[in-house]
Amino acid sequence: MNTDIFRGFASDNNAGIHPLLVEAIQEANKGHVIAYGDDPYTGNAVRTIKSYFGRESEVFFVLTGTGANVLSLSSLIDSFHGVICAETAHINVDECGAPEKFCNCKLLSVPSSDGKLTPALIERHLHGFGFEHHVQPKVISISQPTEMGTVYTSEEIRSLSVLAKQYNMFLHMDGARLANAAVSLDLDFKSFTADAGVDVLSFGGTKNGMLFGESVIFFRPELAENFKYMRKQSMQLASKMRYIGAQFHVYLHTNLWRTNAAHANEMAGLLFRKTSILPGVRITQKVEANAVFAIIPREIIKPLQDKYFFYIWDEARSEVRWMTSFDTTTGDIESFAACLQSLLAAV
Amino acid sequence: MNTDIFRGFASDNNAGIHPLLVEAIQEANKGHVIAYGDDPYTGNAVRTIKSYFGRESEVFFVLTGTGANVLSLSSLIDSFHGVICAETAHINVDECGAPEKFCNCKLLSVPSSDGKLTPALIERHLHGFGFEHHVQPKVISISQPTEMGTVYTSEEIRSLSVLAKQYNMFLHMDGARLANAAVSLDLDFKSFTADAGVDVLSFGGTKNGMLFGESVIFFRPELAENFKYMRKQSMQLASKMRYIGAQFHVYLHTNLWRTNAAHANEMAGLLFRKTSILPGVRITQKVEANAVFAIIPREIIKPLQDKYFFYIWDEARSEVRWMTSFDTTTGDIESFAACLQSLLAAV
Amino acid sequence: MNTDIFRGFASDNNAGIHPLLVEAIQEANKGHVIAYGDDPYTGNAVRTIKSYFGRESEVFFVLTGTGANVLSLSSLIDSFHGVICAETAHINVDECGAPEKFCNCKLLSVPSSDGKLTPALIERHLHGFGFEHHVQPKVISISQPTEMGTVYTSEEIRSLSVLAKQYNMFLHMDGARLANAAVSLDLDFKSFTADAGVDVLSFGGTKNGMLFGESVIFFRPELAENFKYMRKQSMQLASKMRYIGAQFHVYLHTNLWRTNAAHANEMAGLLFRKTSILPGVRITQKVEANAVFAIIPREIIKPLQDKYFFYIWDEARSEVRWMTSFDTTTGDIESFAACLQSLLAAV
Amino acid sequence: MNTDIFRGFASDNNAGIHPLLVEAIQEANKGHVIAYGDDPYTGNAVRTIKSYFGRESEVFFVLTGTGANVLSLSSLIDSFHGVICAETAHINVDECGAPEKFCNCKLLSVPSSDGKLTPALIERHLHGFGFEHHVQPKVISISQPTEMGTVYTSEEIRSLSVLAKQYNMFLHMDGARLANAAVSLDLDFKSFTADAGVDVLSFGGTKNGMLFGESVIFFRPELAENFKYMRKQSMQLASKMRYIGAQFHVYLHTNLWRTNAAHANEMAGLLFRKTSILPGVRITQKVEANAVFAIIPREIIKPLQDKYFFYIWDEARSEVRWMTSFDTTTGDIESFAACLQSLLAAV
Repeated sequence: MNTDIFRGFASDNNAGIHPLLVEAIQEANKGHVIAYGDDPYTGNAVRTIKSYFGRESEVFFVLTGTGANVLSLSSLIDSFHGVICAETAHINVDECGAPEKFCNCKLLSVPSSDGKLTPALIERHLHGFGFEHHVQPKVISISQPTEMGTVYTSEEIRSLSVLAKQYNMFLHMDGARLANAAVSLDLDFKSFTADAGVDVLSFGGTKNGMLFGESVIFFRPELAENFKYMRKQSMQLASKMRYIGAQFHVYLHTNLWRTNAAHANEMAGLLFRKTSILPGVRITQKVEANAVFAIIPREIIKPLQDKYFFYIWDEARSEVRWMTSFDTTTGDIESFAACLQSLLAAV
Repeated sequence: MNTDIFRGFASDNNAGIHPLLVEAIQEANKGHVIAYGDDPYTGNAVRTIKSYFGRESEVFFVLTGTGANVLSLSSLIDSFHGVICAETAHINVDECGAPEKFCNCKLLSVPSSDGKLTPALIERHLHGFGFEHHVQPKVISISQPTEMGTVYTSEEIRSLSVLAKQYNMFLHMDGARLANAAVSLDLDFKSFTADAGVDVLSFGGTKNGMLFGESVIFFRPELAENFKYMRKQSMQLASKMRYIGAQFHVYLHTNLWRTNAAHANEMAGLLFRKTSILPGVRITQKVEANAVFAIIPREIIKPLQDKYFFYIWDEARSEVRWMTSFDTTTGDIESFAACLQSLLAAV
Repeated sequence: MNTDIFRGFASDNNAGIHPLLVEAIQEANKGHVIAYGDDPYTGNAVRTIKSYFGRESEVFFVLTGTGANVLSLSSLIDSFHGVICAETAHINVDECGAPEKFCNCKLLSVPSSDGKLTPALIERHLHGFGFEHHVQPKVISISQPTEMGTVYTSEEIRSLSVLAKQYNMFLHMDGARLANAAVSLDLDFKSFTADAGVDVLSFGGTKNGMLFGESVIFFRPELAENFKYMRKQSMQLASKMRYIGAQFHVYLHTNLWRTNAAHANEMAGLLFRKTSILPGVRITQKVEANAVFAIIPREIIKPLQDKYFFYIWDEARSEVRWMTSFDTTTGDIESFAACLQSLLAAV
Repeated sequence: MNTDIFRGFASDNNAGIHPLLVEAIQEANKGHVIAYGDDPYTGNAVRTIKSYFGRESEVFFVLTGTGANVLSLSSLIDSFHGVICAETAHINVDECGAPEKFCNCKLLSVPSSDGKLTPALIERHLHGFGFEHHVQPKVISISQPTEMGTVYTSEEIRSLSVLAKQYNMFLHMDGARLANAAVSLDLDFKSFTADAGVDVLSFGGTKNGMLFGESVIFFRPELAENFKYMRKQSMQLASKMRYIGAQFHVYLHTNLWRTNAAHANEMAGLLFRKTSILPGVRITQKVEANAVFAIIPREIIKPLQDKYFFYIWDEARSEVRWMTSFDTTTGDIESFAACLQSLLAAV
């Protein structure tokens, strides 16, 4: 099948599986193991993850990024609680209302130009505590990196966790692309998650080379007490869980997470350098992970998409999003930049 | 890793992936394709499934068997509706209340000794239509094969679909092991699903050799209108869907579904023949698919489980369940029967 | 308007408001008070209720009996929990699935000939604890009196509360007609609720002469922590709550609860005596509160209903239910019995 | 009980019941009628409401304003739909997340300085139709009058209904204070609801002199098909419904709705005139119904509240809300204005 036509910058989950992870699946494909996670591959992966995030953490595998986010929130809140998030947060705009459906709660969104929350931005929602007519704010949820490709520093995260504790709230992090943030910050995972005061983390692998497999990591074990029931009831319990475990173990153990994320980030940097110099292109966000946001002339969007698939971010502003992935090549970038340049020239 | 200790008869999803399906995954692992199902592998698989179940059917891939069942029901009902099912139905006892959680509806269960529903058994729930204090019966949900390893004939299914239509209800079939039923009946899929009046089918592959991948098939396309939103909102939308599609295509196109199911059923038959003759063993259900239910002396359960893992079905009756799978060997059966025989001898 | 045609034995909420309670509403109809319960009438009523049920109880007013039940359960469970109840329980058959809708949980029903649960009947549901595929049993819910007009003794209730504690479950009582049970047992409310180990009580007044007004009483205050948010979110928070409070205060303070319930029970006793002696009538339940269940010839049901409205309980058995209320008169009973007798004579 | 201390401008539901409506309740308090709405008083009230809103409308009584709103929305949407509303909408900020809890949907809120929506303000949410990752906009919900005391003209409503139809959406109106809007516009109810393209209306009476009683009115009968089941399942079905019906009939039949609302609006006008002239008071919204919003010096809020209870609207801006009601007197206003003036003088 000719899939070349799909090559582009639409999303990091348009890429396939990294060969090492296909191998991991094959390695685990021997004989019988108990289904639903009580198997040695899953056990192994849990231990590996704990070695990164801390002994005391509790680790669970789920099937999708939406599942990881919704189940994280579900462990922290009741239906009468509110979840504070950026207006651009994945949970707010890209999950078709899954948090409202499963948690029956309200998202309290905050406009944010770079996708980040700050204590000052959050303040408008910090009222009505104890007043039964209002949803009770209970979680601050941030994405790291953000959906705008920006990355929180450890200090920024800590300032939010301090605020959360002060109001008896929790801090959740959507880490669907956590590896890209770690590489960007040049920090180990623990330092800007558990150590920065995050309570629950969605830690994803699919966007960085896995076939499938996301995880939820609790840094306060008591919050995980009922997770297994929620996971099953939410249809997020994989029967052949060994194949998630096998991938996660190799992903972390071999530093594949870093190799892949470093490459994707680097490619985004290259893409930034090649395109930002072109007249008619305005880069709208800092390029800190594997996304580049740009305003380009409206009339070249369609012809450019015809050759390299990507998404329009903001129709009104003529803003587009280009994502790189673990398998983006220098060649991809160069051809793309050349194509863009020639289209710009013709405007 | 030594996984031999897990070899046994606990469940068909304790088995791994069939090699042909690993190959299918590798074949699909090339370049970029659009995520979330708009890719050629998924398109291909949909066409293949339609060639089995009818051109007019609508096909969607999901991630788990629970997901397939809950989303099927969700397409058919509102929260004030009732779903009639056998007391032993997977949706009633093995999904941790997922239907109630996601559909917010009531299951109206019916005791059934062999796991099958009949019009006569259902009758007790067919009242209160139009009465606002009662949930309104709207779906009859059956499992094919049943959780007791028995298989509905086409006529039995048709009698239920006739009843359903008469009361303006729908007929849903949980076909997590549909291939085993088709082999058992020696019928093509369509004849005892679409042609027998089933409205929506959960069609599973994971229990018959797939890595993961379940599907929901609508035989009345208008019922599928909003399925894509429900699937996303329910966290059942796979980003790298191509790998489900790739498996399903090969699974059906190569007749692997039949080969695997025929083998599993045959092994169950052998297991039945080897164990039913042993004094102290009482087989409690007809062996029509890949499950054997038996009452055995209470004191040998634990020692037998230590060597071959399986589940107790009914503690009170000392009844156990043995499942065979696509990779069960004649040797597995023979050693198991021998072990059972020697334990029985020592009683 | 001529409403005589509706006089009958259909339900105790077909009766109107007791004059003393209309007066109570008028008395409270002066000036402004803070809405939503922060008013002196509500405060007063809460104190009065506590004087009956114990200082340490927590009291909340709601709008309907279904609301009281659903919010009671909601305070005790998560969605992955199960609620054990009789098959005939109001929460199971008369609330159109409201518990499933609001609590997203599963009801685990038990057939019971007299509407009562016993430890032996419950046992079948006491398994699967800790097993993520099963809903986790968490509440035993009983109705006092039952929907079959029978009344639990304090000992029977205590045996269920002991069982509940043993399994780390809660005991909920649906006391929509609690006054009728208290009169029947000749006990004060506390002795067979709080003192018998009930954790949460739905305590109703509407079926015994109030205009509207139900309450939820917690005997373990810590369970009430989030009740106010759940009540608001469930649409059960009355804005002009003072009129519920005013009624409840008078209802309890003047012993109206006892007068009304004693009368209704007495009338049921008279109805039993007058009808049970008639050939062709078979009383099917003990008459311990204000309900009489009888099997009568099928052909007289319709003509009898034409003169005195009541409901068929079990079509198949030709069983009917007759409820008495605070305003049933001796004359009502005598005319009814005479009518029944003449219809029977004509069979 | 001395309730004078509560007299003030906090909310129109701090007032009591209009004497004519107490009388209506007493009139209906005769004999037995069928519970749950199948009674002559309810039937009568439905006919009266239809005479105002159109023969073809469908009318249902519920228990609370939140109930009316949530059930209106529930009739129009599935969980994957979005409801567009003003950021200040009652459904968005004053119902503790009841829409999210019961409808499992997402509210798409829009900042609006005067509480009104316009097609231009809504436009930002009109995208993503057909895209499964986004909730699907399905309802525009407006409050008439708005929570800011402003009133939509018929033309403004029509422009929204035209937009709704264009996008295959519905228009819902929260008319908890509809009478105040009708008086303000000097229009009959029908002209700015059904005739202006509203699909479903929450029509309330509690804030204008009723004890309790709200209604949902469908102008497209087919939308009401399943309402009765939703109402029961949502715990909003009153057993003694005759007392809601009796009130609504008198409320409309005697023009009490108009008398009460006209008085409340007039009192708000007087309050505006008396306070807006005071130095240090800035009125922030047009006074078109029975609410006055004002910015006053922060230091006088508490002493003023001590004498006349009212709520702070926006802490940060030192903005307060004063509501008048059917029983506000000229004396109330004059004393309040005098008190305010003397406090201002002391600043």
